[in-house]
Amino acid sequence: MSTSFLLEQDVTRSLHEVAQQLRVDSVRCSVAASSGHPTSSMSAADLMAVLLARYLRYDFTDPDAPGNDHLIFAKGHAAPLYYSMLRAVGAIGEDEFLSYRQARSRLEGHPTPRLPWVDVAAGSLGQGLPIGVGVALAGKSLDKLPYRVWVLCGDNELAEGANWEAAEQASFSGLDNLTVIVDVNRLGQRGPARHGRDTAAYAARFQAFGWHTQEIDGHDIQEIDRACSVASARPGAPSVILARTRKAGTRKAGTWKVSGVAAVEDKEGVHGKPVSGRPGEAIRALGGIRDIRVQVAPPVPVLPAQRLHPAAPWRPPAYAPGSVTSARTAFGAAMAALGDTRPDVVVLDGEVSDATGTASFAAAHPERFFECYFAEQQMLASAIGMQVRGWVPFAVTFAAFFTRAYDFIRMAAVSRASIRLVGSHSGTSTGADGPSQMGLEDLAALRAVHGSTVLCPCDANQAVWLTAVMAGLGGVSYLRTTRDDMPVIYQPGERFEVGGSRVLRTAPDDEVTLVAAGVTVHEALAAADLLADDGISARVIDAYSVKPVDVATLRAAARETGRIVTVEDHWPEGGLGDAVLSALASGGQPLPVVRKLAVRSMPCSATPDEQLQLMGIDMATIATAAAELVGLLSPGGTPPGRVLEFCPLPQGNFPVERKISALDPPMSAWPGLIAKGAAVSGPATRTRAGARSMWPECE
Amino acid sequence: MSTSFLLEQDVTRSLHEVAQQLRVDSVRCSVAASSGHPTSSMSAADLMAVLLARYLRYDFTDPDAPGNDHLIFAKGHAAPLYYSMLRAVGAIGEDEFLSYRQARSRLEGHPTPRLPWVDVAAGSLGQGLPIGVGVALAGKSLDKLPYRVWVLCGDNELAEGANWEAAEQASFSGLDNLTVIVDVNRLGQRGPARHGRDTAAYAARFQAFGWHTQEIDGHDIQEIDRACSVASARPGAPSVILARTRKAGTRKAGTWKVSGVAAVEDKEGVHGKPVSGRPGEAIRALGGIRDIRVQVAPPVPVLPAQRLHPAAPWRPPAYAPGSVTSARTAFGAAMAALGDTRPDVVVLDGEVSDATGTASFAAAHPERFFECYFAEQQMLASAIGMQVRGWVPFAVTFAAFFTRAYDFIRMAAVSRASIRLVGSHSGTSTGADGPSQMGLEDLAALRAVHGSTVLCPCDANQAVWLTAVMAGLGGVSYLRTTRDDMPVIYQPGERFEVGGSRVLRTAPDDEVTLVAAGVTVHEALAAADLLADDGISARVIDAYSVKPVDVATLRAAARETGRIVTVEDHWPEGGLGDAVLSALASGGQPLPVVRKLAVRSMPCSATPDEQLQLMGIDMATIATAAAELVGLLSPGGTPPGRVLEFCPLPQGNFPVERKISALDPPMSAWPGLIAKGAAVSGPATRTRAGARSMWPECE
Repeated sequence: MSTSFLLEQDVTRSLHEVAQQLRVDSVRCSVAASSGHPTSSMSAADLMAVLLARYLRYDFTDPDAPGNDHLIFAKGHAAPLYYSMLRAVGAIGEDEFLSYRQARSRLEGHPTPRLPWVDVAAGSLGQGLPIGVGVALAGKSLDKLPYRVWVLCGDNELAEGANWEAAEQASFSGLDNLTVIVDVNRLGQRGPARHGRDTAAYAARFQAFGWHTQEIDGHDIQEIDRACSVASARPGAPSVILARTRKAGTRKAGTWKVSGVAAVEDKEGVHGKPVSGRPGEAIRALGGIRDIRVQVAPPVPVLPAQRLHPAAPWRPPAYAPGSVTSARTAFGAAMAALGDTRPDVVVLDGEVSDATGTASFAAAHPERFFECYFAEQQMLASAIGMQVRGWVPFAVTFAAFFTRAYDFIRMAAVSRASIRLVGSHSGTSTGADGPSQMGLEDLAALRAVHGSTVLCPCDANQAVWLTAVMAGLGGVSYLRTTRDDMPVIYQPGERFEVGGSRVLRTAPDDEVTLVAAGVTVHEALAAADLLADDGISARVIDAYSVKPVDVATLRAAARETGRIVTVEDHWPEGGLGDAVLSALASGGQPLPVVRKLAVRSMPCSATPDEQLQLMGIDMATIATAAAELVGLLSPGGTPPGRVLEFCPLPQGNFPVERKISALDPPMSAWPGLIAKGAAVSGPATRTRAGARSMWPECE
Repeated sequence: MSTSFLLEQDVTRSLHEVAQQLRVDSVRCSVAASSGHPTSSMSAADLMAVLLARYLRYDFTDPDAPGNDHLIFAKGHAAPLYYSMLRAVGAIGEDEFLSYRQARSRLEGHPTPRLPWVDVAAGSLGQGLPIGVGVALAGKSLDKLPYRVWVLCGDNELAEGANWEAAEQASFSGLDNLTVIVDVNRLGQRGPARHGRDTAAYAARFQAFGWHTQEIDGHDIQEIDRACSVASARPGAPSVILARTRKAGTRKAGTWKVSGVAAVEDKEGVHGKPVSGRPGEAIRALGGIRDIRVQVAPPVPVLPAQRLHPAAPWRPPAYAPGSVTSARTAFGAAMAALGDTRPDVVVLDGEVSDATGTASFAAAHPERFFECYFAEQQMLASAIGMQVRGWVPFAVTFAAFFTRAYDFIRMAAVSRASIRLVGSHSGTSTGADGPSQMGLEDLAALRAVHGSTVLCPCDANQAVWLTAVMAGLGGVSYLRTTRDDMPVIYQPGERFEVGGSRVLRTAPDDEVTLVAAGVTVHEALAAADLLADDGISARVIDAYSVKPVDVATLRAAARETGRIVTVEDHWPEGGLGDAVLSALASGGQPLPVVRKLAVRSMPCSATPDEQLQLMGIDMATIATAAAELVGLLSPGGTPPGRVLEFCPLPQGNFPVERKISALDPPMSAWPGLIAKGAAVSGPATRTRAGARSMWPECE
């Protein structure tokens, strides 16, 4: 790394040439693909030329070298620039380079880790900087290696709040191994960014969050070089370089006449379009195709990574059958034990460790516990960054609050990242805190993540085992825990497989199957007792693996009992019931009768037991539903005079929820009749009384 | 409103008494409920006493008065304080007050709009401020009324990035009708907040984002009063009052000895717990139960809300059958026409209006178009705030990016808010931009929202009609649009109902039903042609209403054809296929054979047509799947020698996605054998080569 603050002319000229090559190549590959974002790429060409040639420490022939820097393109749509850089260092050849965006090409519209030099998939703006913070946090706190994390951001993506969760984390943790370069090119997708080219506005914000800032001309090689040098040497705080640039061109700089592509320079409306008309002309204006090979500085030499041996034997907590414990407590104890034996496991928690169970890990392994405060997006980003470095992160908060970070979860799957999520306070059994604190969509949301694993323990020993299993899973995995106590029904040390289930009750004369997970398993067992009292034999399946679900056991139950009742402490959509239906359908055979019990009303405050009853997922409702199925379909029908009364079934639908706003004319009048002058109520006349009538189930 | 900057002693004493009453009442109702957060309530008692008695302009007997201020408790767990305020103004009586957290009580764990004075449900930290910004934006830009929005926040919830999206929006829009009061009580759920009681740290951040800031002693009545007065009078920028407080007590202030509850004052670990042991003692220490009735200043008088009449007739765009248009284009044109006729409709877009179709509305109705930049959380919050004021907002971005704001969507349902979401670039038909830009989980995520409506148009005229329908829907509704062009198959002006569907092909000898939505409708129609060529009659259903789904039509199809193929440009979990299965199961009858086609591999870059083929949701795959079902189940079996070859079915599962990390010993060795010294690979040895092998479907 050069320490000189004034580059020699010929060095500057060479860097300029590299930058022009990156511009030319950005145009060439976009043209080949007939789509892409060459203008967003070209504005950052000078910045990347300097970084690549003088500051990045990376061995492109050995992406796994532990001392490698990390370069993250937060502005993933500048993929042409990134691929041009790969060409410049010789990592990819010309043919592959021109395959940009084609089917089966590794060079996708936005870079993904199909390329071994790419840490995480780009394309969702406002994620790169937070994930970069996660990698830097790993470097400083876990790896304790001196690599640097470089992030290239766009200006308008700084509007994303996740960046400010990241900014707070980075300065709080003193991440001076992180340098963010912001390409302030003024123009977003459809128009100017809020602050235009006012780098001082961005600088003020970063400074307030404790960062070191520099504002430069993003097309002045000298300024870029000096800024990178200063940023790399600055201790104690993360750095941001705010670079004023122009999309698609360079203005005059120094003693060189540099020409951009005048047709698109600084124009709105050309984001995401290749330079149209005459790419050859643009390439000529940029000085033509070049074949410069950039030598990148090697990574900082580090000792070979230690092979970590288990620090201690695995001593899981054990819970006595018949006792009661919450899944969150058992998870917490298992986590601490896991931390004892696996030195690569880390835990992140979102300001709720006293409630989620992670407090014991925090006490036992403070150097591997990361308090993330109320910033779930950054918590996920930190986990993703840490697994880039090979650590095994568990990110923990209330199930409901993972919805705050759902885009990061979605993109983790695109990145093939391995992260383990643990959501407590799931379902209405959370109790009197009310629906804001209850996870009721988590099974649906996490099932709809590519390649995910979704687990839902029903007792403490199962929670312990599944926690340990998750440590070994790739991809996104999710463990659903509860706030409330549940009976212990399994032995300590019982093994549970991903994709498995447990048949807890079965008999040759089973007439119906109850499929449950988590808290509803206990309700189902009690329902089976009620049914047995009435001479109905019910199979009970604990479907703790919601995804993948135990297809074989479910199909056998369908075949042998002919009637299925599923019951979950979750909305009806997308959870256990849908998983069961889907599994039964996948066999290519007709399905039996399936009755899905779930939470169909918005919960209010109530005790856990009241909740289950109010929501119609308690033992009595399950037994009634099962008995109805048996009565409806048993060969002889329900014996005369025999009425099975456990409790009335709650209302299945909630039409009042779909109440049309008081503002609108009735559908019969709209839209055709609007022309006839029917009055539309204006704003501010909406009645609160109307709102009250939408809450009947609680009154 | 007093303009004096020095309160008279007796006024100050009275305000102190009100504050003590609020403290006493916070203790009393928490004790009655045996749960709750009295300490978080007590720290803000002085702040709220001053606000209530001297600055809030609100008629508690008329929550709908258009001139009313808005008070939002972002720190919703301070519900006891809020309910104590309602008691103090006489809005609720003693009996109801003591029903806090009981089943069926209106006074839930966190306030919800079941109470007519509450705008939005509280409880998810970091939402109140953004939603307050939305209400203030409505006040300034839409209602043009002088009410003020007051938001009470906690300190540690400021870590949530959404607040900084909000801060940027508020200052950019000059929302001087917004005052945020931050209760800086130092302690979060499980420990101190990052900045402790350092109000200057928070002030620097808000100032950098363009806010006016004041730092005060949150227990000094005079300082509170002065700060509120200054904030209310400050033009041009939003205001924040950062108040240093102590949880559960007040220190000495001025000439009064004020006593808190010493046992819990400023102690970690007592969040969320009622004052235990001797509540009577705490109440005595606070001066005992009081019955002060606070007179709140009336709202600013405003003219009665105008009844807005349609500005123009409804002139929807019309597309000729046989032409091709994208759903996003048709939606955009419909939106603009809707804006012409409905003066209460507003549109918000997240920096992608040139791609989503909202650019036409923006051009036609700039005063009702809100550019939200890349800040989806704030976009949703603004929409929620605007509908509080009776406006009819449509929030628009790429389908995938609604995942960024999923917590706001979840809480909108808890609030019974009416917001309309429109997600473009849905599915793999988005094309070469790659998976980061594709909505593949949106149907699942939006179905799992309580009371939601989910619509998926397959042609331009249908998109137009459904857009108009959404304007009249309550609750959360979602319209899924595409980037790519689709054939127009419906007539302009055809009507489509929520909960309906369209049978596009049917014949008495139908042997199989194809159920599709959006882009796959066209593939299904083409597949039906292929099947017809082979003598198989296929019914085709356009299930444009994914939630609620057309149960009757689906059951009829099941009954009459006995075989169903569902096909969606979406992951397999939680979308159309699951909706169909669920609908068929809800009838209490066995289900027919159902084959679900969906996206089962992670997409890469490819053209839209290539995507459908690669992902196995194109016409050939549909036809093959249908023919297999018919061949398998037709009474005579497949005629000998007849092989229906359309194309091979893609691999349904992707076991490599579940590849266990290279770090972990094989499951057979773990956890039991760890004790025997099996080495665990340490971090930083994870191979990128290993990562490459996880991407087979793209190679």
